[in-house]
Amino acid sequence: MHTPWAHRYAHRTQRMGSSAIRELLKLTEKPDIISFAGGLPAPDVFPVVEFQEACQRVLQDYGAQALQYGTTEGYLPLREQIARHTARYGIQVGPENILITSGSQQALDLIGKILINRGDRILVESPTYLGALQAWNAYGAEYVTVPMDKSGMNTDAMEEALRSGPKFIYVLPNFQNPTGVTLSLKRRHKLIELADRYGVPIIEDDPYGQLRFEGEHLPSVVLLDHRFRENGNGCYSGNVIYLSTFSKILAPGIRLAWVIAPQEVIAKLVQAKQGADLHTATFNQIVAHEVSRHGFLDQHIKVIRDTYKERRDVMLAAMDRFFPAEVDWTHPEGGLFLWGTLPKHLSAAEVLKVAIERKVAFVPGDPFHPNGGGHNTMRINFSFSRPEVIMEGIQRLGEVIHELIGNPVKVG
Amino acid sequence: MHTPWAHRYAHRTQRMGSSAIRELLKLTEKPDIISFAGGLPAPDVFPVVEFQEACQRVLQDYGAQALQYGTTEGYLPLREQIARHTARYGIQVGPENILITSGSQQALDLIGKILINRGDRILVESPTYLGALQAWNAYGAEYVTVPMDKSGMNTDAMEEALRSGPKFIYVLPNFQNPTGVTLSLKRRHKLIELADRYGVPIIEDDPYGQLRFEGEHLPSVVLLDHRFRENGNGCYSGNVIYLSTFSKILAPGIRLAWVIAPQEVIAKLVQAKQGADLHTATFNQIVAHEVSRHGFLDQHIKVIRDTYKERRDVMLAAMDRFFPAEVDWTHPEGGLFLWGTLPKHLSAAEVLKVAIERKVAFVPGDPFHPNGGGHNTMRINFSFSRPEVIMEGIQRLGEVIHELIGNPVKVG
Repeated sequence: MHTPWAHRYAHRTQRMGSSAIRELLKLTEKPDIISFAGGLPAPDVFPVVEFQEACQRVLQDYGAQALQYGTTEGYLPLREQIARHTARYGIQVGPENILITSGSQQALDLIGKILINRGDRILVESPTYLGALQAWNAYGAEYVTVPMDKSGMNTDAMEEALRSGPKFIYVLPNFQNPTGVTLSLKRRHKLIELADRYGVPIIEDDPYGQLRFEGEHLPSVVLLDHRFRENGNGCYSGNVIYLSTFSKILAPGIRLAWVIAPQEVIAKLVQAKQGADLHTATFNQIVAHEVSRHGFLDQHIKVIRDTYKERRDVMLAAMDRFFPAEVDWTHPEGGLFLWGTLPKHLSAAEVLKVAIERKVAFVPGDPFHPNGGGHNTMRINFSFSRPEVIMEGIQRLGEVIHELIGNPVKVG
Repeated sequence: MHTPWAHRYAHRTQRMGSSAIRELLKLTEKPDIISFAGGLPAPDVFPVVEFQEACQRVLQDYGAQALQYGTTEGYLPLREQIARHTARYGIQVGPENILITSGSQQALDLIGKILINRGDRILVESPTYLGALQAWNAYGAEYVTVPMDKSGMNTDAMEEALRSGPKFIYVLPNFQNPTGVTLSLKRRHKLIELADRYGVPIIEDDPYGQLRFEGEHLPSVVLLDHRFRENGNGCYSGNVIYLSTFSKILAPGIRLAWVIAPQEVIAKLVQAKQGADLHTATFNQIVAHEVSRHGFLDQHIKVIRDTYKERRDVMLAAMDRFFPAEVDWTHPEGGLFLWGTLPKHLSAAEVLKVAIERKVAFVPGDPFHPNGGGHNTMRINFSFSRPEVIMEGIQRLGEVIHELIGNPVKVG
């Protein structure tokens, strides 16, 4: 007799079906595949030695405290350190505006938990980050989409979506996952203005903002929010919840990220986090604090930028050389990804099938479009592989696309 | 102008209001209070040196892999190690029946996410673990309760609760949090029989089962489930989801726990976890695996048992000496907590107020009763404080209770 578990699952699990990211992460584990699929940072630049030293010092100096339960808000010296770090990007907040989460994915989940009622519409860029959709599907979210172009979300097309009464706006302004595109300064102002006019809050997801290797840093949306400085006591109290993470500037395997929000929102998030996992690992927080001290973080971010710039340049050059003229792609000024657009008649999923046979992988663009579309688009990661591997992988991919377009030009 | 965040929160946040555990954890941070309130393991027995060595070896041998993203299911060698470890307690499963979670609190949250629809009734012991209520309130759970006595949940009183059609049964069979009481073998069999008859699954939460320092180990409910061995392929496929954790046998600050469940349930939990935090910290999993190797875990559990037995004995002796005859308490055979019952006219919350003035703390029992009751009960932790501190704290608490009962007997 089989236990009828199938009849026991909550309704919400029907929306949790697809597990594209997970399956893709598995794909990238096969060692003989050149994978541009994952969102993996370059392991070459993980500060392994610095972690070794920090683990020693932390266990020496803190002993059992580093292994004990901690508070839900997060380790205070780490929150203070984050406050100092974000101040370098103009965002001046106190630790009481900061919550430490177990990766930004948890921040997205907690935001869903405190804000989304079944059937609520979320205004998202199309395409948008898949992990956010996965987190919010579980709370019964629906989506209204605003198209992207090479200056980010098209704010001129936002008003119609805003009139549908979305619960919040979700935006990745810097080197967006999946497109690599950056929201222009003009559109940032317009976004704030429209959000104000319609009374809709903004979730600003900024995992890559510090990884700009070209062009000028643009102010964060949270910073442009005119209410940012209105509260006299030095605490942030505005319309924006801002997310960032250590995953892309230190290492993702320690699962550490942070939320910046008005104190009352932090209080709600803390309640939700308490029920979700009590608190983020104490040891990881103290070690990350130790690793990041004495200017190491800023110095290390420079190393990452240089590494990723080189890889992006190699990838763009390889695409110029190996991709058919019918394919278009973005030129990101930072981050981890670029976005390819195939001729309309070509399906990226079909391309992937053949590509995997040739031992190269990427992510087809359709799952990033919550309301459909994008069948001929592809997300391509340039941060993970070494330059010579990028060259080889793009050559293979170019050959596959050439063949499928029907002009199997010999290149190289 | 204030942003109207207050009007934006999801309905479910109304049920997330109380944050008793968090507030209590804060209380325990004040250094001058003798706190029996937290559920903190003894920091004296955290294997700090072993962690130091393990961190070195892991970063030496695994390098960047230990800091990279990992799979949602968890690090395979750790799941295999857990399978070997639980086999020592008779639970023979493969790694495909195991999911690593960010503490057992996350397992409770994910179980709520995949099983609970708004308004579903959960059958719980009364009193029961507060963290489970906090996790499940967010999914709109209601509760039907079965009273406890000194042999655990009173299974003779279960049928009425089962007839109300609960979604699942939640039970902590060993040294329950909060009461310290153990479910008798006879009742374990009865529980399985009733769950089968009514077709209701069981969540068995067992954070303390390995910490028995007196009496004989009783088989887990998951093991008594007659379907445990029915599936020929060596995989567990039954009616029970079993939870345990490294928090009480290694250290809670690394946030590592595990779920044992049928494969199809693991698959649903993996989907839910992917949206919740992608995966549990890679580094923590590899380090925990390294620390636990070569029999260290079994050896270390013996040290913890000896330590906690001494502290329980000291606390029981101190209660005998300092508590009024009108107060009753449990005699746990393991775990971290015991449970005091005051005379009916005395409120534990009132006792706590005076106790905090005298620099001693515990948790009043009412929040552990989801449908009310228990105003005159108290959860008292004996694992955290050293014996001489326990003696002093119980003396202070005894004096407070004596005074409030109205017979301020001079003791000591």
